[in-house]
Amino acid sequence: MAGSSFGTIFKVTTWGESHGKAVGAVIDGCPAGLPLAEADIQKYLDRRRPGQSKYTTSRQESDAVEILSGVFDGKTTGTPISLTVYNKDQHSKDYSDIASCYRPGHADYTFDAKYGFRDYRGGGRSSGRETIGRVAAGAVAAKILMEFGITLTAYTRSVGPYTVPDSRLDLSAVTENALFMPDNQTAAEATEYLNTLMKEKNSSGGVIECIIKGMPAGIGDTVFEKLDANLSKAVFSIGAVKSFEIGDGFAVSRATGQTNNDSFFTDENGRITKASNHAGGILGGMSDGDPILLRAAVKPTPSIGAAQKTINKDRESIEIGIKGRHDPVIMPRAVVVVETMAALALTDALFLNASARMDTLKKIYGNSVKK
Amino acid sequence: MAGSSFGTIFKVTTWGESHGKAVGAVIDGCPAGLPLAEADIQKYLDRRRPGQSKYTTSRQESDAVEILSGVFDGKTTGTPISLTVYNKDQHSKDYSDIASCYRPGHADYTFDAKYGFRDYRGGGRSSGRETIGRVAAGAVAAKILMEFGITLTAYTRSVGPYTVPDSRLDLSAVTENALFMPDNQTAAEATEYLNTLMKEKNSSGGVIECIIKGMPAGIGDTVFEKLDANLSKAVFSIGAVKSFEIGDGFAVSRATGQTNNDSFFTDENGRITKASNHAGGILGGMSDGDPILLRAAVKPTPSIGAAQKTINKDRESIEIGIKGRHDPVIMPRAVVVVETMAALALTDALFLNASARMDTLKKIYGNSVKK
Amino acid sequence: MAGSSFGTIFKVTTWGESHGKAVGAVIDGCPAGLPLAEADIQKYLDRRRPGQSKYTTSRQESDAVEILSGVFDGKTTGTPISLTVYNKDQHSKDYSDIASCYRPGHADYTFDAKYGFRDYRGGGRSSGRETIGRVAAGAVAAKILMEFGITLTAYTRSVGPYTVPDSRLDLSAVTENALFMPDNQTAAEATEYLNTLMKEKNSSGGVIECIIKGMPAGIGDTVFEKLDANLSKAVFSIGAVKSFEIGDGFAVSRATGQTNNDSFFTDENGRITKASNHAGGILGGMSDGDPILLRAAVKPTPSIGAAQKTINKDRESIEIGIKGRHDPVIMPRAVVVVETMAALALTDALFLNASARMDTLKKIYGNSVKK
Amino acid sequence: MAGSSFGTIFKVTTWGESHGKAVGAVIDGCPAGLPLAEADIQKYLDRRRPGQSKYTTSRQESDAVEILSGVFDGKTTGTPISLTVYNKDQHSKDYSDIASCYRPGHADYTFDAKYGFRDYRGGGRSSGRETIGRVAAGAVAAKILMEFGITLTAYTRSVGPYTVPDSRLDLSAVTENALFMPDNQTAAEATEYLNTLMKEKNSSGGVIECIIKGMPAGIGDTVFEKLDANLSKAVFSIGAVKSFEIGDGFAVSRATGQTNNDSFFTDENGRITKASNHAGGILGGMSDGDPILLRAAVKPTPSIGAAQKTINKDRESIEIGIKGRHDPVIMPRAVVVVETMAALALTDALFLNASARMDTLKKIYGNSVKK
Repeated sequence: MAGSSFGTIFKVTTWGESHGKAVGAVIDGCPAGLPLAEADIQKYLDRRRPGQSKYTTSRQESDAVEILSGVFDGKTTGTPISLTVYNKDQHSKDYSDIASCYRPGHADYTFDAKYGFRDYRGGGRSSGRETIGRVAAGAVAAKILMEFGITLTAYTRSVGPYTVPDSRLDLSAVTENALFMPDNQTAAEATEYLNTLMKEKNSSGGVIECIIKGMPAGIGDTVFEKLDANLSKAVFSIGAVKSFEIGDGFAVSRATGQTNNDSFFTDENGRITKASNHAGGILGGMSDGDPILLRAAVKPTPSIGAAQKTINKDRESIEIGIKGRHDPVIMPRAVVVVETMAALALTDALFLNASARMDTLKKIYGNSVKK
Repeated sequence: MAGSSFGTIFKVTTWGESHGKAVGAVIDGCPAGLPLAEADIQKYLDRRRPGQSKYTTSRQESDAVEILSGVFDGKTTGTPISLTVYNKDQHSKDYSDIASCYRPGHADYTFDAKYGFRDYRGGGRSSGRETIGRVAAGAVAAKILMEFGITLTAYTRSVGPYTVPDSRLDLSAVTENALFMPDNQTAAEATEYLNTLMKEKNSSGGVIECIIKGMPAGIGDTVFEKLDANLSKAVFSIGAVKSFEIGDGFAVSRATGQTNNDSFFTDENGRITKASNHAGGILGGMSDGDPILLRAAVKPTPSIGAAQKTINKDRESIEIGIKGRHDPVIMPRAVVVVETMAALALTDALFLNASARMDTLKKIYGNSVKK
Repeated sequence: MAGSSFGTIFKVTTWGESHGKAVGAVIDGCPAGLPLAEADIQKYLDRRRPGQSKYTTSRQESDAVEILSGVFDGKTTGTPISLTVYNKDQHSKDYSDIASCYRPGHADYTFDAKYGFRDYRGGGRSSGRETIGRVAAGAVAAKILMEFGITLTAYTRSVGPYTVPDSRLDLSAVTENALFMPDNQTAAEATEYLNTLMKEKNSSGGVIECIIKGMPAGIGDTVFEKLDANLSKAVFSIGAVKSFEIGDGFAVSRATGQTNNDSFFTDENGRITKASNHAGGILGGMSDGDPILLRAAVKPTPSIGAAQKTINKDRESIEIGIKGRHDPVIMPRAVVVVETMAALALTDALFLNASARMDTLKKIYGNSVKK
Repeated sequence: MAGSSFGTIFKVTTWGESHGKAVGAVIDGCPAGLPLAEADIQKYLDRRRPGQSKYTTSRQESDAVEILSGVFDGKTTGTPISLTVYNKDQHSKDYSDIASCYRPGHADYTFDAKYGFRDYRGGGRSSGRETIGRVAAGAVAAKILMEFGITLTAYTRSVGPYTVPDSRLDLSAVTENALFMPDNQTAAEATEYLNTLMKEKNSSGGVIECIIKGMPAGIGDTVFEKLDANLSKAVFSIGAVKSFEIGDGFAVSRATGQTNNDSFFTDENGRITKASNHAGGILGGMSDGDPILLRAAVKPTPSIGAAQKTINKDRESIEIGIKGRHDPVIMPRAVVVVETMAALALTDALFLNASARMDTLKKIYGNSVKK
């Protein structure tokens, strides 16, 4: 089955295994005329790069992206953009022990169940390195969105029980701490918590949040292609995500209509907006013009050093402790993945919307016809 | 944009507005040879029918489904199955007041922002009646799954703050109370809560859960078409859903790797299974053979009788109270929608998986070739 | 497998069997704001209706189309348009003899080979009645194209050996003869030829041509989604088509570069055009602004009264002569099918093209963003 | 718009410009367990390589393919297969003259009309080098088909007026002459014809044919996804193709039902076959088990040395003669492109068909369920 493409009009196909020759992505459907250079993409890849703090693996991966097609004279041409990152520093030997065992919390068993065998080196296709293609492609999507005045900001909202409270949320702090939390104090507390877990060869889950500003109203669809449904799929396609929320999320289950409904009003500029934003910027599957707020709960890193029971391929019980360096939390490296996956979903929704109305189409085609 | 289709191989397209002539669905890609009658589908439609209790609207809609194509001699033929339900008892006049105002929590404004105008009668395409097509098609998917031994059971887990605790969860109780809760005691408490809210012209949110048993291991994809990602999109495409979870869901954010990892073991029948199921039956985007557990948080019914501030189409501030009978909770009628949307996602995943391995394909095509 | 949908953005799904309850189509992705009434569609359906001349079957089928959704206050709303035509005058008994035999030139055997059994009544899904859904949906596409100044005209170019020569081709004659030929003289000759064949219980092939004017330059894609490739698929998906050509078609195989290349020049209005149009209005998969000319060769009606050898389902040799009235030529009724299938392909290409350039997208989204 | 992908289940995305860094393809949906090495693919690429005779350009392109992902221990893993061919010997300077002019018969003008500008180097995305990705991916499809006993053989049937007659068609001769014609005598005559044209700085069109053996009956769909419709799109997506035929092709337009219908009979092995094959192996959109015969008319190479009138980007009339070496015929290099594009269409059709029947699906999933 073909499961490595995302999007209908702005379509991304990723490829590559953790310890194969390279990983990459092909973007098909990027409009012509977008200024684009490798540096635009590298900036995003560097945000997911390990080795930036002691909470992320210290391998020195350069992950330098190369644009192989689709860009000419500094601008996209409308043809497919092929992005490749060659794998270096592969240490294949380090992973030989996982060839025959089914690690708890990993895709080893399900991969074998589906395909009969797997490229076990470094987790193969199920490795976090698979996200390089997404981030590279999503960086291009984010650049397109910026041209329309749409911005995305993702950050770590929680590490285990340590959550940044609304009252202290400060987006300017996100780049000031290694956990990408929008509050340095919570980040400091979370850091201590992680230090303790690392000593115990343990790991922690957490929450990533993303806020999107500048999305025009009316983007998305009424039924299956709801904007929130596609954001949900986009974010849930990231390994380790176990919950996705829009706006107030799970809390709506305990709310009442009187508290949860957001009143509309017209602001001083004559624009329609809402007095509150419990809805998270999406109503009936379509953006309402207010900020879109989404949230993903991320499970603890399954690769832990502590001893765990499991089985090998011969179905025999064994005990394993995962060797090597592993991040005690997934969030710091996944923040940019959530942000870029959201960018992919939004870009495709904008492009699909271009043919929603006859009057818009007439603006495009009304005068182009040779009589 | 085309947003009313779901699925790649088992593809469903729904159509129809609340107060148009009819609503329906076309299933394209149903395999030949499935015994199918209208009664198989009607059974599911009746579960979403209003008028069954005082917590659901008392309109007497018969919602009788008609199969117009794709079935011959009691079996599906492999060609598209067209399912139609004619709208009756439309009371168009009752809804005339919503033509010019933007109801809080509804898609009135976003629809206008997207398309410039809308069929406002009864909510038009954004009405709950749109789900008739989904449920009708999902009933066929559920029947296919049953042929492979796969079953789905959805129920209301919470109404506002009233949640069925694990210790009292009893699936046999689901059909014993009007709220479809798997515990009659919690249902009774929730009922009292709803009675109070109804007096206040208010409404409540809640949680729907669905458990899927019998799914073989290895179904789903490693990257964008992860089984959980598609279940998430399927469920998030239902209006009012604001959160989706698999397995432990949001709780994983506070867990550690040692508590969250599920150990594999081989059971007495030689089958691979897990000692716990925090993962909810999906690892790396593929089913692991254990029960799949999913959960959706549903917002309170936005149509409430209490006075609310909003604006009309001319952007003037107004105050409205939604007239007419409205369910104080969405869950009882949405339970079957969650179940059937999950059935659609699972069926498509199974069919996509049919070409995952050369050895499977050789079983199908190995001997069919004319030499 | 799902094979009854056409298009990516303007997506049509057809359903229905010849002698089932009804046939129809769902259009998903029709832009909002197109004036549309049943009469707009009926006009096209009437062109494919039998009983108009002695060369088409004389059954009195009314084939009245009903719009069940997606239109409000006389305009499309952007939601799916469901179109239904109920089957009448079914004469199921007439077709009982084809239940057990494999008619030469028909899909009886291949249908059984694929699905194991078939709805044999009147050819089931492989009947010409399946095209009702296409024509109904294509009528909507043609109406959209007209709003942009794009027109399509299809006609019968040849009946057997009788071909309208270039020198006598007159589009105004198309509606003047029962064969829809753009020359009454050739039509008269062809009519005599068909009279002879009918006496012999035989049938004839022929050629349908379609000319499209007003298509702006630059529509279509460079690689797989070439405009000619999609037109080819659209037309080849009509039963009985065995050859498809663009421009000079097969004749290019005997041409040289010096004769086949079309020189560009700038016309008096400053528009780019070509001195000749061997290319048929498409270069490199994209429209060049000149008329698009396409051509389909149609096989002789396979249902003939003359005796033919074949086998039954038990693989025994039998001899059959197809009873009942059958058209001796397919072209008169297929002309509108070719025209509407081309309309579907062109409309989808136009919509896909809407996001081809950043400058176009900025016109749509540049000022819509709430700051 | 995204136009560089082909296929639904076995999905190929190509990328790359003639004089960019590289060209390539990503195959998503290749089943796991297919033995695959670069040599399997290189063999096909070498068939489209120039420099093999004086009728193909003499540039020494090595076009060495590299598999970057999706293969492990010599077998496909089920994950995307990334195939890359780096561009060498680019001679960018040679093409600088085409930057500002619109060559007759080329996509220069239509590309500018669509995207506003283009990568003009060597034809950019519209160059014949774009087919490298198709051929590389199609080689994998052909290998899959061979595992099921299905073979494809393409060849040059005509060069200008020189056509191999049925009576002398000998497939074993195809590799014996530089034109890949199945008759050395016709090839010799065609060679003389081409020599004359080359002296005149002219070029010739021709016909490519492909015969497919071993396809099981019942593959393809009844309506839009007819096997012939998809083969038509596949072949028409190759630049320079202006006509596509199945079986008797255009000749059916002059045939009668009595001569064109193929009688079914049961052969000595109890298999259903046809006494003749005017249908070319496809009935009602589905394969009938007999050989599939398809044919494409290819236009003369548009790049000719002789002087031609055209315009430049400023719409001024100019006269050009295309410099550099150009093949006087496209067929020899396009034969393998037709063959591999057909392989892609057939493979996808086979995979889509895997879920056509409940009984087939029960063979796959019937016993895999954990009770």
